[in-house]
This record gives sequence, structure tokens and C-alpha cells, in this order.
Amino acid sequence: MSFPTLTIMLPDWVAPFLSQRPETCPTVEERMELVLALAGENIRRGGGPFAAAIFEEQTGRLVAPGVNLVVPLNCSPAHAEMVAIAIAQKLAGTFDLGMPGMPALQLVTSTEPCAMCLGAVPWSGVRSIASSARGEDAERIGFDEGDKPVSWADGMLRRGITGIRDVLRDKGIAVLAGYADLGGVIYNGRQAAGVSRKP
Amino acid sequence: MSFPTLTIMLPDWVAPFLSQRPETCPTVEERMELVLALAGENIRRGGGPFAAAIFEEQTGRLVAPGVNLVVPLNCSPAHAEMVAIAIAQKLAGTFDLGMPGMPALQLVTSTEPCAMCLGAVPWSGVRSIASSARGEDAERIGFDEGDKPVSWADGMLRRGITGIRDVLRDKGIAVLAGYADLGGVIYNGRQAAGVSRKP
Repeated sequence: MSFPTLTIMLPDWVAPFLSQRPETCPTVEERMELVLALAGENIRRGGGPFAAAIFEEQTGRLVAPGVNLVVPLNCSPAHAEMVAIAIAQKLAGTFDLGMPGMPALQLVTSTEPCAMCLGAVPWSGVRSIASSARGEDAERIGFDEGDKPVSWADGMLRRGITGIRDVLRDKGIAVLAGYADLGGVIYNGRQAAGVSRKP
Repeated sequence: MSFPTLTIMLPDWVAPFLSQRPETCPTVEERMELVLALAGENIRRGGGPFAAAIFEEQTGRLVAPGVNLVVPLNCSPAHAEMVAIAIAQKLAGTFDLGMPGMPALQLVTSTEPCAMCLGAVPWSGVRSIASSARGEDAERIGFDEGDKPVSWADGMLRRGITGIRDVLRDKGIAVLAGYADLGGVIYNGRQAAGVSRKP
């Protein structure tokens, strides 16, 4: 009895792609521009239409990028936010990005986190979230974002995690629409009656 | 600019541990016995007090085990359920364990999934969940399981995913209590006022 090893690795194109851009993004809009550019490039490279990155909240220094690797890795948990969190934690050498001594970190994501990624946020230690497209924008092209608590933003606030949504939302929606137009895979691992795979 | 690779690998002891047990567990109680034994051994080996496994629903054949690797991997998303899902998908060569042609699969977990792992279930393609200890039992020893939708079981059902809870719950609680008694790390990546790290 033996079990395989899973290697979570950013695609080869990510580092050169980022090296052509500023390492520091002072405003949340600049951070989102970077993340949306990553999402667009991920589509062109055969990945899903989602990207994320973790930045130092105060300085805007890029700590860790993430792109959706569900299809290339055959791994449904490999959403962009999860990849960014895992890489940031590996770099920091801790499972808690909010531990004493760490600068406050922000998760910036091209689409509002799905139910899984929302649940991952409090465990991760990031102190704030910024998102572009809304969950409903992803659902419009066929993704099932899952059931979220009705007042999830309040739940985050109770844990000291703030949020800002709709950052460059039109551009975020355009990234999703571009993926749908290309006929990208809409992956939803359930086949229940009444839950369609396509909108 | 370069970024690290994350390797998700079961600890060396898991395969020999499982090879001493039946590969097929026809009843849900037998499946849970196996999962709780894995959780107990994971504690003894320095991991978190959580284990999970994916079984074929009809035959009870073990497809993929998972143990909590948050502390050893420094990776907050590496909950037992996520590890089991990732390994099962790697073995199956698909990000959708519910795709046509696959036998129906069941996620068996030592504690009710936290908000993140609940969100991961619909993406994964498993068709049912069985759990032992409840979320509140994990919270009693200090873990913050996150905010879940009030009627999350209904949301699963709408996606064709059934659930059974409280399977050998007393044993599941005993595993958690054993971890707390040993002074195991209670990791919660947030420092909000009013949210204590210990009960």
C-alpha cells in the first residue's frame, strides 16, 4: 500500500511574468491590477480564470502569488487563494501568517472567495481580504461557489479580518467572461439533479 | 523572484500502519474505527488530532487516507479532509471524484468538517460525508471551526451529497481530549480581541 505525493508548484511562467512588474503595489487597485493580470495569463496558459496574491498590507510588497491549478494538478482544493496562502506560509516558515512579529498581510483575489476559500481565511492568519468580481459573477459563468454564511463579513470582522470588495470589479468580470468565451472548463464536482454544470 | 514548491505527502508511518488493517471496511463504523486510529497515531507522531479517509461507498474499499499536516508542513489548509481529497484525486487522475464512471465515494472524518473543509466537499465530487466528533467538540478544546451556513446539510443535499454525523462520537471526542491533555498546539491564525486561543 503506497500513496502518491502531491506537488503544489506555481507554473514556470509566473516568476518571469512577475519580474516584469513592480514588486511593490502601494494601493489596493495596483494590487488588483497585478492579480487580474495573473488571472488573465493563467487562462492563456491553460489554467482556471482565478488568481490571488498576498501582500504586506502597509507597504504593498508582494509576498506570494497564487493561480488556480485545479485542472492542471487534478486537484479541486488548488484554488488560487489556497495556493497563495500555502506559498506564503512556506516562505514564512509558519502556518499562521498573523503570528506576532509578522507584518499584517492582505489576501487580494480576482473573485470573491468561494465557501472553501472563505473558510480557509481565518486559519491562514491574513488580516484583510480584497476581491474584484463577486461570487455571483463566477456563478453566472457556471461555477458553484458553495453555500456561504449569510453574514460572513461579520464573522470575519469578529476575527479581526476586514474586507473590501468590488475592487476593479468590471475588469474582474471581464476576466471571467473571457474564460467562458474561450470555452474553459467549468469544474463542479457534483451531479445533483437541479444543479446544472453550465448556466 | 522565485517561489517555493509545496510537497503534500503522507507521513512515512501511514502506509505500514494501514497495511496491518483490512483494506475494506464494509460498515461506516468500521471505516470510522480506521479513521480514529489514524487520528490517534497522528497525535503520537506529532501531528494534529484529525484524520480522514475516502472510501468507496458501496464496497468500503479504502481509496485514500488523510491526516492533519498543518503543523509539520506549516500549511494551514493541510487539514486531513483536504489531504485525503487531494490524494484521492491524484490517484484517480481527476479533480472530480464524482465524474461519470467513478464509484460513489464517501469522505469519513474524525471531526465534522470545519468551514473550509465543508466548502471543499462540493468541489471534490464525493457523494457523502460521515463524521464522528462534532465541530463543537473541536471548539471545546480551542479550535475555531469557522462560520458555517446555518443549514449546511441542506446545501449538501441540494448538491446530491448526503451526510451522517455522530458515528462513534464518544471515541471521536476521546481522541480530541487526548490531544488537549498532551498540550498539543491549538492553531488558530487570528488574534482578534474576544477570540481566545485557548478555551
